[in-house]
Amino acid sequence: MENLILLKLGGSLITDKTKPFTTRPDVIKRLAGEIYEARQEKEKLKLIIGHGGGSFPHKPAKDYRTDLGVIDKESFKGIAAVQDAAANLNRIVVDSLIEAGENAISFNPSSSVIAEESIIKHWYLEPMKMMLRYNLLPVVYGDVVIDVRRGCSIISTEEILNFLSRDLDSKRIILVGITDGVFDKDPNKYPDAKLIPEINPKNYLQVREYLGGSAGIDITGGMLHKVDQMFVLTKFGIESEIINGEKEGFLKRALLGERGLGTVIKA
Amino acid sequence: MENLILLKLGGSLITDKTKPFTTRPDVIKRLAGEIYEARQEKEKLKLIIGHGGGSFPHKPAKDYRTDLGVIDKESFKGIAAVQDAAANLNRIVVDSLIEAGENAISFNPSSSVIAEESIIKHWYLEPMKMMLRYNLLPVVYGDVVIDVRRGCSIISTEEILNFLSRDLDSKRIILVGITDGVFDKDPNKYPDAKLIPEINPKNYLQVREYLGGSAGIDITGGMLHKVDQMFVLTKFGIESEIINGEKEGFLKRALLGERGLGTVIKA
Repeated sequence: MENLILLKLGGSLITDKTKPFTTRPDVIKRLAGEIYEARQEKEKLKLIIGHGGGSFPHKPAKDYRTDLGVIDKESFKGIAAVQDAAANLNRIVVDSLIEAGENAISFNPSSSVIAEESIIKHWYLEPMKMMLRYNLLPVVYGDVVIDVRRGCSIISTEEILNFLSRDLDSKRIILVGITDGVFDKDPNKYPDAKLIPEINPKNYLQVREYLGGSAGIDITGGMLHKVDQMFVLTKFGIESEIINGEKEGFLKRALLGERGLGTVIKA
Repeated sequence: MENLILLKLGGSLITDKTKPFTTRPDVIKRLAGEIYEARQEKEKLKLIIGHGGGSFPHKPAKDYRTDLGVIDKESFKGIAAVQDAAANLNRIVVDSLIEAGENAISFNPSSSVIAEESIIKHWYLEPMKMMLRYNLLPVVYGDVVIDVRRGCSIISTEEILNFLSRDLDSKRIILVGITDGVFDKDPNKYPDAKLIPEINPKNYLQVREYLGGSAGIDITGGMLHKVDQMFVLTKFGIESEIINGEKEGFLKRALLGERGLGTVIKA
């Protein structure tokens, strides 16, 4: 689909990860406003938003080890608790987007996804495709879903965007988090850490080494996962960029087409 | 599926229809408790809950005439507003069920249904079927969905139960509302109104006349629709019963197998 951008709002950005079930309402409101403004200025911009769960599903997912699948009788309680927590955060995000002026629509992955080892095997996307044609704004999120091998599994927002970008033929993904992008060292520890403006087939392995090493900057618990997931997509001609959502206006500028605000991952 | 009961919690029962976006928390809590108790006592009781929208989606649906489909540019705002309102009520219902001890799971019809003239044409049900096998408790609700003819339409909880009962082979539906059942006259106007204990092929047409006539009791705005929808199902061997959820313990007793608490509709 032409002009379709997939946008991830990171869990660390929209929730307070130090307090369970706590959002960052001002940040969500500002981001919703930037999205609305960008879509007003560039009318043909089609968008799907995926958001992380942050401090919402984190606790029940950890308590019940939902990532391991159905491991005992308590796992069923875990499925309900994780789905509930993730859906409750989704409502807050969708409500904010509607308040900002967007015609945002919730899509619960648990209602229509079947996974295998945390990889999406089937997703009934007809309703979402038709809503996109109406220029409605689908909002999905990392969720607990039925898994044909493990019973249940958690699918990450990156996995969701990965699947959607290929299925809906989107060429651009924007990941908005709480860091400026990918650094060559942990910028919190090393004042001389440098932002890597572009990850491509030439420097990918070297960057992976930085991220996996002891000086790695995996502070959000998933930078390596993110880079790996997005690098795979470069083979399909999909470009992604990791930018800092704490910086006012960055999301809007990226949506309007600007590149170079963070780290671009492309072939 | 053996022992599968479909249960409708009426919008008038779980919300205050006189005030927009207002639930009846005590009623929801009591009903959730009755459901949990019944499922504890009768372990093999499989259940799907569908709930009405009551005072939640009512206002936006009326403002934007969402029942007519996509009629102008404002209709898209309506789709978002109706979906949001219905999903927000659903979260409250699911949260209450989880609090009562149930492993309740939201299923958003808008995420996985395609309709034609308000009739469900396609619904991807694999995730729900697998969750039922785990004895999780799916919770669906009347929602705005993509409609191949009208653009969008509203599907009623009765239409949802109608589809599910045939697709999942359930033989019993319980509709819980704010009246004792179907009366031969409006019980609020006529003190001699009599409850009709059973509607069957012999008295169906006569009952329809009562309901459609000027002394009809269509006070919940849908008794005729309900009876019609449920009567069609008698041809598939499906029995339904309309009972009063205001009466403590009625829902639990019905779930445990008791008949005769309200009006039964059967062949």
